[in-house]
Order: sequence, then C-alpha cells, then structure tokens
Amino acid sequence: MYDLIIIGAGPAGLSAAVYAVRAGFHILVLEKSPMSGGQVLNTYEVDNYLGLPGINGFDLGMKFREHADKMGVEFAEADVLGVETETDVSVPGRCIHTVKTDKENFRTRAVLIATGAAHAKLGVPGEEELAGMGVSYCATCDGAFFRNRTVAVVGGGDVAAEDAVFLARTCQKVYLIHRRDELRAAKILQEKVKELPNVEILWNTIVENIHGTEQVEGIGICNTVSGEKQDVAVDGVFIAVGIRPNSEAFTGIADCDDRGYLIAGEDCATTTPGIYAAGDIRTKSLRQVITAVADGANAVTGIQNYFSHNW
Amino acid sequence: MYDLIIIGAGPAGLSAAVYAVRAGFHILVLEKSPMSGGQVLNTYEVDNYLGLPGINGFDLGMKFREHADKMGVEFAEADVLGVETETDVSVPGRCIHTVKTDKENFRTRAVLIATGAAHAKLGVPGEEELAGMGVSYCATCDGAFFRNRTVAVVGGGDVAAEDAVFLARTCQKVYLIHRRDELRAAKILQEKVKELPNVEILWNTIVENIHGTEQVEGIGICNTVSGEKQDVAVDGVFIAVGIRPNSEAFTGIADCDDRGYLIAGEDCATTTPGIYAAGDIRTKSLRQVITAVADGANAVTGIQNYFSHNW
Repeated sequence: MYDLIIIGAGPAGLSAAVYAVRAGFHILVLEKSPMSGGQVLNTYEVDNYLGLPGINGFDLGMKFREHADKMGVEFAEADVLGVETETDVSVPGRCIHTVKTDKENFRTRAVLIATGAAHAKLGVPGEEELAGMGVSYCATCDGAFFRNRTVAVVGGGDVAAEDAVFLARTCQKVYLIHRRDELRAAKILQEKVKELPNVEILWNTIVENIHGTEQVEGIGICNTVSGEKQDVAVDGVFIAVGIRPNSEAFTGIADCDDRGYLIAGEDCATTTPGIYAAGDIRTKSLRQVITAVADGANAVTGIQNYFSHNW
Repeated sequence: MYDLIIIGAGPAGLSAAVYAVRAGFHILVLEKSPMSGGQVLNTYEVDNYLGLPGINGFDLGMKFREHADKMGVEFAEADVLGVETETDVSVPGRCIHTVKTDKENFRTRAVLIATGAAHAKLGVPGEEELAGMGVSYCATCDGAFFRNRTVAVVGGGDVAAEDAVFLARTCQKVYLIHRRDELRAAKILQEKVKELPNVEILWNTIVENIHGTEQVEGIGICNTVSGEKQDVAVDGVFIAVGIRPNSEAFTGIADCDDRGYLIAGEDCATTTPGIYAAGDIRTKSLRQVITAVADGANAVTGIQNYFSHNW
C-alpha cells in the first residue's frame, strides 16, 4: 500500500512528489504517457517563474522532471480510469483508496489528482501551427511579450473581457472578437472594455484562420450577419473561449463545481477525506505554473496533517 | 501616483514585482536595506523549489533579484513607518493610500505588504554560529537533510509536535525538548508523538548551548527540576519556539489575527480595499519560498481584478 498516489506529472504533481519524498512518504506518480509533463512543455517561453526568467517551457518542464528524478521519485505509465474509496467504519475520516488504471490497480492512503486542464481550441487553420508563435491561451502568461503590438482576443466571457482590459494596458491596439452581438462578461467588465480607447470590439464576428510564416501576422475574420470577410493584421491572438478540467475520470469521487473543477481550497483538500486536488484541476482564481507548483507543496502539507490526525 | 507599492523584497515581493511589471503597472518596491531579499538569503540550502534542486539560499535569492532587475523593477531603500488610507467617498471601494517612510511618502492606488516573518530564537551560544549548519527553524524545509540521523526539536506547541512527527518518519531518532512538563500541542498530536518509538520527549528541559565545529554535533541541556546538566549528541536542532510576523508598522491598517498576521486568503486581499498581503506575513498554513512566490502572482492578479472593478 502506498502513502500517496499522485495522478499527473505536470508542475503540480512533480512539486508534490518532491515534497512527499522529502517527507518520507512511499509514493508513486502515474502519468498518461512517458514524460507527460503538462501544458508547460508546449509553452514557448515562461517569463514569470521567479528565478528562471525567459526560459523555454519545454526546458522548464525538463528541469521540473530532473528535480523529481534526483529525489528518486518513482513513475509509472498508466491511464487512470477512476478511484474507489472504502471508508474504514472503525475510524471516522480514514479511507483506503484504490486507483484503477488500464494496467493495474493501486491501493493507497491518499490520492492527489493533478491532471490539469485543457484550453478549448477554435479549431481553425493556423491555430495549432502557430501555437506559442503568437497564438496563446493565457494573457497573464504571454501578454507581456506583445508590448506596443496589436493583438486580438477571441471570446465574450469574463476571461476574454479581463484579457482585453489586461492587454490594453501594454498593447497598442486590442481587437475583441466575439461571435455574438453582446458580451457574456460581467456588466462592469463590459463597460470597462467599451471605454478603453485602444480596444475595438468586433461583434458578430468569427475567426476563420490564423496566418503568418514564423509568427502570427494576421487573422481572417467573417461577419456572421453581413457575410463580409476581412483580413486583419495582428501580432498575437489570445483565445479565451473556455478551459476544461481533465476531471472526467474523477466525477463522483469528490464534489466538482458546475464546470467540472474539483472543489478544493488552498490546502487542496477535496470534499472526500484523503483525496486532494492540485494545480489547474482545482477551483482557484489563477492558473499558472507557479501556483500549480505551490499547490503541490500545500497538498503534501495538507496530507501530512491529515495523516497526523487520522492515522 | 503609483499603481502599486510593494513593501519588502523577499520572494513574495519580487514575484509580485515581476507579475506587476508584466501587467504594465507603475510600481515601486521598498526595501529596508540594500538587497534585503528575505529569509531565503540566510538559508544554507533549498531543495524543494521546483526546477532548482539543491540550490544555496543566497544564490536562489540572487536569482530572484536578477529576475526582477531584468524586468526593470524599480527599488528604493526606505523604512516603512505606516500606511494611511483615504476613502474616495464618491466611489465605494476606491481608496488612495500613502506609504509613509523615514525618507519620503509615496501615494499609490494599491499596496502589497510582503515584509515576511521572523523565527523566534533560543538565544543560546552556538545557535547563530551554526544556523544553516544543523540549526534550522523549518522542518519542512530542512528535515530531508537529516535522513537516518539524530535530531532535536525544541518547543512544545503544535509546530514542535508536528515537526517531531514529520522528522520521525525519516530520522533515526528525534528528541523533543520542552521546558515544561506537558505539551501545549493539540491532544491528538501529543498522543501521536508519545506513541512514536523513535521520539523521546525530554520534559522540563532547556537547551543551554549548541556546539560543533563545522556542523552541529551536540547540545548542552539542563533539567530545570533536578538541575542536572547533560550533553546530547545530535546532528541537527529544529527550533520551533514561535514565529512573529513583521507587521508592527501595519497594525490598524487591516485586520490581523491574534498572532499579528494580516488576515488574507489565497487572493491576498486584506480587509481594507487596495491593501494586499503576500508571503509569510499573511494568514496561511504553509510558509515556504514556493508559496510566497505564488502569493506574489495571486496578489497581483487580485489587484488587477480590484482595479478592473473599482477604477
């Protein structure tokens, strides 16, 4: 029996593994594919992980992995199908969990779910090819690379409006492109966006393609009412059409919010004793590499305290 | 007028500075002394900041500073005496703050307090000389360096008991040294400590000195009831006799808990609009470099949202 099974080998899972090994836990990290590593591996540049300015996302992910390897963390490749929890009726709050995978099942005292989240894609030509070359899914992460440039934000919800406000502070011009004739974002954000002189909202508009040779150079857009097509020169495209937690395998194991995120606070404890959630998969306001890594530390500390009080 | 004044240049303050500059904020970081940098600078080795295994604390602190410098962060040396907040009666939630220092005063839309905390010292010979050479104030940080060794924990509260439980998992032997005849720690922790075969509690005992040439080799202890003195061979001493937030200058500015920590959740917002607290100075369960750095990111995101909704 393991003390802790960590599901996912991104920044949250690897940080938790480092803390857990240092705490003397008998652990195993399950990853879907060899060196899965999470979203950071596909990030062109990370400039806000303190201490490692301007590092390539792949290199940062590799540094994380090497750190875990150096600590002697044990990894296994497996697709997790679900977790079963048996309550020990004699001891309130103490549960034994079985992590079921496509290969074998593992028994453990605690489980940390750190499977992350995935940004919804537009699904248009050029999006995948230019990801990290001007196509971004995170204004907080990448906005600073577009200082004094022209960018487009695609979407109409809170995140899209917040991204537009955020980018307007440093970019010369921001197009906010929305397929409907009004934003879903909070009223106050809508007003904010509308009063910013360097934000232009393109209503009833969809993006049909993103193009450029090495970097994004422009987007092809279409007005869904008039049918008019147009090409707009931009240096960056921020796609804010949704994010989905990778929580399918865990429904019913602990409470999720209406978008599928596992409900957990800063201590990463879910509503089920012994089940923890760290990184992008948990309910939180800022999904960044640094906050995922901190979650890993907080989760292990939470688990330590849980063990101290229940085992 | 500044968008944001950051008080303190440790991991939390520097991370916030990086995020704030990237967000296009006009900021200033106030530090007490040149390159103050926080507790990390005096840490012998940090082995749990993901991506930089086994780094010397001073080097890590310097990397943090260089990152901020690379972003063009502006620093000023000043001793902060207090913060005055004027409410803008015409706009609920909007305040202007004046940061008063021994040199000049600064007006700003938001303030981030990141002045950290300080561990209480025993004040015995050898403690200062051997700090980082076997004397530690953080079991989570340094416990892993003492695998299969003998250590002493000094204190009788929750933290001391938790440290003893934590260290017992990896150390061969743990002495828990307490000056009274019972622990103040939670009952369940007391029981836990007492049932661990490799933890020996030395009651009514004070540490009189810590000695060793390059590393801790032993401690001189005294039984306060019998007066008996004794020398005990240990490889490490974990001092858990309290921690005090550096919040003297900020009393009355926002609500503090009964130990003086500024009350703030994961978003780092205090009870006063526009005043934020990040790192060791805020109420939180795990005070680590990585959680301080994450706080810096969360605080700036919180401040961005505050500006979006109130300015």
